[in-house]
Amino acid sequence: MSKPPFKFSARTRVGFSDTDAQGIVYYGRYNPYFDLARVEYLRSLGLLHRSTGGEFVMRANDVEYFAPARFDDELEIHARVSRIGNTSVTFEFAAHKMPDDMLLVTAHQTLVYIDVNERCAIHVPDDYRERVLGFEGDDAQR
Amino acid sequence: MSKPPFKFSARTRVGFSDTDAQGIVYYGRYNPYFDLARVEYLRSLGLLHRSTGGEFVMRANDVEYFAPARFDDELEIHARVSRIGNTSVTFEFAAHKMPDDMLLVTAHQTLVYIDVNERCAIHVPDDYRERVLGFEGDDAQR
Amino acid sequence: MSKPPFKFSARTRVGFSDTDAQGIVYYGRYNPYFDLARVEYLRSLGLLHRSTGGEFVMRANDVEYFAPARFDDELEIHARVSRIGNTSVTFEFAAHKMPDDMLLVTAHQTLVYIDVNERCAIHVPDDYRERVLGFEGDDAQR
Amino acid sequence: MSKPPFKFSARTRVGFSDTDAQGIVYYGRYNPYFDLARVEYLRSLGLLHRSTGGEFVMRANDVEYFAPARFDDELEIHARVSRIGNTSVTFEFAAHKMPDDMLLVTAHQTLVYIDVNERCAIHVPDDYRERVLGFEGDDAQR
Repeated sequence: MSKPPFKFSARTRVGFSDTDAQGIVYYGRYNPYFDLARVEYLRSLGLLHRSTGGEFVMRANDVEYFAPARFDDELEIHARVSRIGNTSVTFEFAAHKMPDDMLLVTAHQTLVYIDVNERCAIHVPDDYRERVLGFEGDDAQR
Repeated sequence: MSKPPFKFSARTRVGFSDTDAQGIVYYGRYNPYFDLARVEYLRSLGLLHRSTGGEFVMRANDVEYFAPARFDDELEIHARVSRIGNTSVTFEFAAHKMPDDMLLVTAHQTLVYIDVNERCAIHVPDDYRERVLGFEGDDAQR
Repeated sequence: MSKPPFKFSARTRVGFSDTDAQGIVYYGRYNPYFDLARVEYLRSLGLLHRSTGGEFVMRANDVEYFAPARFDDELEIHARVSRIGNTSVTFEFAAHKMPDDMLLVTAHQTLVYIDVNERCAIHVPDDYRERVLGFEGDDAQR
Repeated sequence: MSKPPFKFSARTRVGFSDTDAQGIVYYGRYNPYFDLARVEYLRSLGLLHRSTGGEFVMRANDVEYFAPARFDDELEIHARVSRIGNTSVTFEFAAHKMPDDMLLVTAHQTLVYIDVNERCAIHVPDDYRERVLGFEGDDAQR
């Protein structure tokens, strides 16, 4: 289902290993769901597998939990780039439970593009920026 | 090492299963370290194993990453309650790498106390509040 | 691809959180892939969500590793029931990397059907046995 | 507690993230406990951090489950090398719940020593073999 300003989503199911003794998905196990959505988002823009020297590392990750997911729930993870800076990119996520489309969890993740050897921030490659902004349009801050 | 206003810390080591293909701790794998510190904090106050009907569930978790940890690094996780409301508690964490005491990661986690059957917020038990405030003193907002 | 005596398979992709600092999938992170294949196998037979009082718990899990998987590899996980006893079921798995179909990992898992309260083995329900044997035919030992 | 032929053990506690919706430790989450015991075993013999070109990769891992562990249980993980071959080492593990010392899980893990670039088996270094055999004596097969 479309959820503006989100233009992309990926689906997954809650595996048994994602649950905890409260009978719900462990709060830290949403991160792989966000990874999945981010990976598929990048794949769809041709940006997943690159060899440009740098790599993205996590700088900040804030997650809000509104309702729990349980084993075998089907989840739709909406993903978008909400901001693209000189050396960093911020993704926004919203996970809904299918088929009733209930909002479960939202998140923002800011990743910094670094030189792996020096571990210092470097410029996000131009083509990365262009393809993301071409897809997100005015919905992404720059 | 003391890190005011933190009055409590727990130590752990980075297991191999905590690392990822970037050679560092996967960003989502700090959550179990925070859990460890929270659990030991509560144990130290006699608040870990209780049977008062309610349980705490995660409402918000924001994490900031300053430097990476690697396999077998020894970590000291500082923990404190920074705020205790009517139905929720906010923990603050700071993970340092030993022995050089380098700051790696900070986090805030807000947990809501709920009635498990109704899944609605209920009052944090009085003795929980009192013991936490007795330990944290004026450093905890209420 | 068909791999007799396997009659069922499920596909997944290696998430970044499945990798470790050796740059490959952490050996313990194949278990969720086996879970996925077992869950989809049971779903396909109408046996996934049942409320018959008992539940299956892991009794033995042996895994052999032939070649490593890496981030974003697409895996096909073949699954079958190789034996169904009075109180237990043994699944066999074989994970291949796509598209070249290279064998990565094989496993056997024996699950015991137990009464959750007593934690003692009880009979596998008749309809479960019948549907599995109806699907596997003479390829499953009984 | 001593459990011949085991001569070494390490302790840990069940974290909340190790549990699943059955209320017990997820069967795949014993692997990090075995890693912990293996790492501390090697550390005690001065074999943990080495730079000899090769590294150990998992070849086989079989686990048997006798009783479940729950959140916050204290576990003692016994570890030993039961066999050391030309290019591989087999570890044996037994996890007990403290303080009643109940056997929960046993495992065997065979790791192959490989050249990382070629991904082919190479000889286990002589000093590794000697220190392990010096510690295990006749209890280790060779």
